[in-house]
Amino acid sequence: MVKPIKVGIIGCGVVGTGVVQILLEQKKLIQQKAGIEIEISAVAARNWNKKRFYEVPKNLQTTDWKKVIEKSDIVVELVGGVDVAKEAVVQALKAGKPVVTANKHLIAEYGKELVSLARENKTTILFEAAVGGGIPLIKVLKESLVSNNVEEIQGILNGTTNYILTRMEEDNLPFKEALKEAQEKGYAEADPTFDIEGIDAAHKITILANLAFGGFVDFKKVFVEGITNVEVLDIKLGRELGYTLKLLAIAKKNSKGQVEVRVHPTFIPMDNPLSNVRGVFNAVLFKSDYLGKLKLQGAGAGAYPTATAVVQDIVQLAKQLSCCGKTFDITPLGWKGKEEIPVAEDFYSRYYLRLDVEDKPGVLHQIAGILAEKNISIAGVLQQEWVLKFVNDKNSAIPLIILTHKAYESQIKEALKEIQKLPFVKKKPVLIRVEEERY
Amino acid sequence: MVKPIKVGIIGCGVVGTGVVQILLEQKKLIQQKAGIEIEISAVAARNWNKKRFYEVPKNLQTTDWKKVIEKSDIVVELVGGVDVAKEAVVQALKAGKPVVTANKHLIAEYGKELVSLARENKTTILFEAAVGGGIPLIKVLKESLVSNNVEEIQGILNGTTNYILTRMEEDNLPFKEALKEAQEKGYAEADPTFDIEGIDAAHKITILANLAFGGFVDFKKVFVEGITNVEVLDIKLGRELGYTLKLLAIAKKNSKGQVEVRVHPTFIPMDNPLSNVRGVFNAVLFKSDYLGKLKLQGAGAGAYPTATAVVQDIVQLAKQLSCCGKTFDITPLGWKGKEEIPVAEDFYSRYYLRLDVEDKPGVLHQIAGILAEKNISIAGVLQQEWVLKFVNDKNSAIPLIILTHKAYESQIKEALKEIQKLPFVKKKPVLIRVEEERY
Repeated sequence: MVKPIKVGIIGCGVVGTGVVQILLEQKKLIQQKAGIEIEISAVAARNWNKKRFYEVPKNLQTTDWKKVIEKSDIVVELVGGVDVAKEAVVQALKAGKPVVTANKHLIAEYGKELVSLARENKTTILFEAAVGGGIPLIKVLKESLVSNNVEEIQGILNGTTNYILTRMEEDNLPFKEALKEAQEKGYAEADPTFDIEGIDAAHKITILANLAFGGFVDFKKVFVEGITNVEVLDIKLGRELGYTLKLLAIAKKNSKGQVEVRVHPTFIPMDNPLSNVRGVFNAVLFKSDYLGKLKLQGAGAGAYPTATAVVQDIVQLAKQLSCCGKTFDITPLGWKGKEEIPVAEDFYSRYYLRLDVEDKPGVLHQIAGILAEKNISIAGVLQQEWVLKFVNDKNSAIPLIILTHKAYESQIKEALKEIQKLPFVKKKPVLIRVEEERY
Repeated sequence: MVKPIKVGIIGCGVVGTGVVQILLEQKKLIQQKAGIEIEISAVAARNWNKKRFYEVPKNLQTTDWKKVIEKSDIVVELVGGVDVAKEAVVQALKAGKPVVTANKHLIAEYGKELVSLARENKTTILFEAAVGGGIPLIKVLKESLVSNNVEEIQGILNGTTNYILTRMEEDNLPFKEALKEAQEKGYAEADPTFDIEGIDAAHKITILANLAFGGFVDFKKVFVEGITNVEVLDIKLGRELGYTLKLLAIAKKNSKGQVEVRVHPTFIPMDNPLSNVRGVFNAVLFKSDYLGKLKLQGAGAGAYPTATAVVQDIVQLAKQLSCCGKTFDITPLGWKGKEEIPVAEDFYSRYYLRLDVEDKPGVLHQIAGILAEKNISIAGVLQQEWVLKFVNDKNSAIPLIILTHKAYESQIKEALKEIQKLPFVKKKPVLIRVEEERY
């Protein structure tokens, strides 16, 4: 008879409650499949009077997270944030206990410190649920792509913003209305800042970049632009041009050996494999040297999908403990001989520009002149009567759309500075990056 | 200094050559990521004079596969088939050596025997590359879904047939021409029987079903219908009705506790997440109780993607050997207490029927009568002038399309037997199953 592995859970919000439910209800299934018995030792929460969707057995409840560490073979941190959560993870690792967490903020900003602490104490920290909810992106990147050089990652990593953009596209809802609807449906939090400003997606792409390129991205160097300024007009114009708008998280090597790590609204062609990812779903495309393109798509959030990912990590560690008495990770954060990932400060991309101009002779000529001067090649221009049907105020300036070939963002920004000074340009130009990658 | 793990490879066709190349060229990368050194001990092939796309170093070449087993910590079988391949796998397991194989035929038909042999000898057999080429379906099913009950698997598991169907749809190529094109491009073998008759996909879905439902499907009970009789006319009519035709491999629980395991041409709606999987790509949709839907898509064949999957398994075993001196598998084939999977002999599905009938009064009335008698409910009928534009021979019978609601296949078959007897039905009716599942 094999000894049961004791798992302690710190934090009992929706994900924590989901983990407790799965470990209890699927105990027999896990035993049948993996041949191990998992027992919950204790669950810590600040407040046990709060109603939860699944009732945690009284004998497991505690308010003392330190006790949880003492009583467990594996410690699961689901507090969130970087205060108590960090302290608990540090203490568990110092006690030599392997840790499972869903905390993207913690791993993206303190991953280096925590992984080296785990190494010192000959233990392991796993974090599948930190990125992509129930989609096993981390496992695939660590284990399936272990022999490949990853060249590029493109992902829709935030369900809230994908839901909002989908609703803006489907029903011409302005951003604020779509956000309100998302909040009503429980897809966006009361304070949605982390999601709509792109910070959540930026934490996630930072973690994926660290795993793909082998060092640590300085999170402060990640370029982040949220969706708060996105207008329905541009989504509609983009559709006419064959694009759909996504908040894309991108990490890719450039020709100088640096890595571009960025999150921003992005036009992608309708035959890009991420174009059909709608609503709250997440999806990621990995491009690597031997395997080529691999796409994973599924539920990027929600109690049960995220809890499934947490339990994946628990079972992996429990199986290792049960077979060998110790734990290990195929590809931990921070490969041997790699420390920092050089983050590119400038990007090389295509661009969609919307310039609201007066309708008079010479306009295109002057704008094209500035772009030529900055060495930016034009891929397409759109200034047609039918565009006007999308403009509410018929007397205002009319939109002139310019699609560029690939250029450095610094060049585009310089050109826009000049263009903005032209007397017939009536508003601040709209700039949306375009990824032409197709399957 | 950690001792290198010695890996021996038996069989050096395209996948074997790819594995040798990746292990040699990515040796340093694997070392950086996984912290282990993998050394090829020997590579066995029948004929070393054959030109390969990567040159295997002379000192590794042998023609004696038994020597490979002796010299290795991990044995990789890439011979294919079930003769020498099976013998080599059996011998390796008997010697207590963990095995990696890409052999779907072997695992689908002899998995039970081999896994129990591995268990007896306290070792492991892994086979990621047997299903879905470079897409890590097996790892995800075994490890990420360990805590979930899988309810249904739908997959496009054969790139050759998906390429042929894509070309038939895109360019109205008849089956034979599309097959010829696939052969010219190297996507289909000189003898394409295993692919076009659906046997390859059936082997793969059998393996996935075994892992998902925990026992062993009797391969002889898997329902298999290939694509050799598919006509462009039905693909076009299906498109008009909002469907695309795929050779779908399905494994799902029915209400009687049995599992439907089947491979056949299937109409799926355009918003099914598998509808946009075109050309030689493979994709799979897993539906499970806590995670919901998860889709994986990528290269289902080819030397490098398949070799990447083989190396995933090699590294997993090598890491375990290096950390613990033994190997293990989170979810091996055949869970505790589960032996046989009861395979359903009848299916519950929707159907597309094409009846080529004379254009005269009373036809629909009589056909509808037979369907009503067999308790089959009609979801839609299509008999319109525009259908004629797809029919080459204007004087022949005209196609009457009937879409049914869900019914047992046995009911449909009985009804078709009656319908075929009607004097105005001019040809053998066409029956195509329809999966209405949407994302």
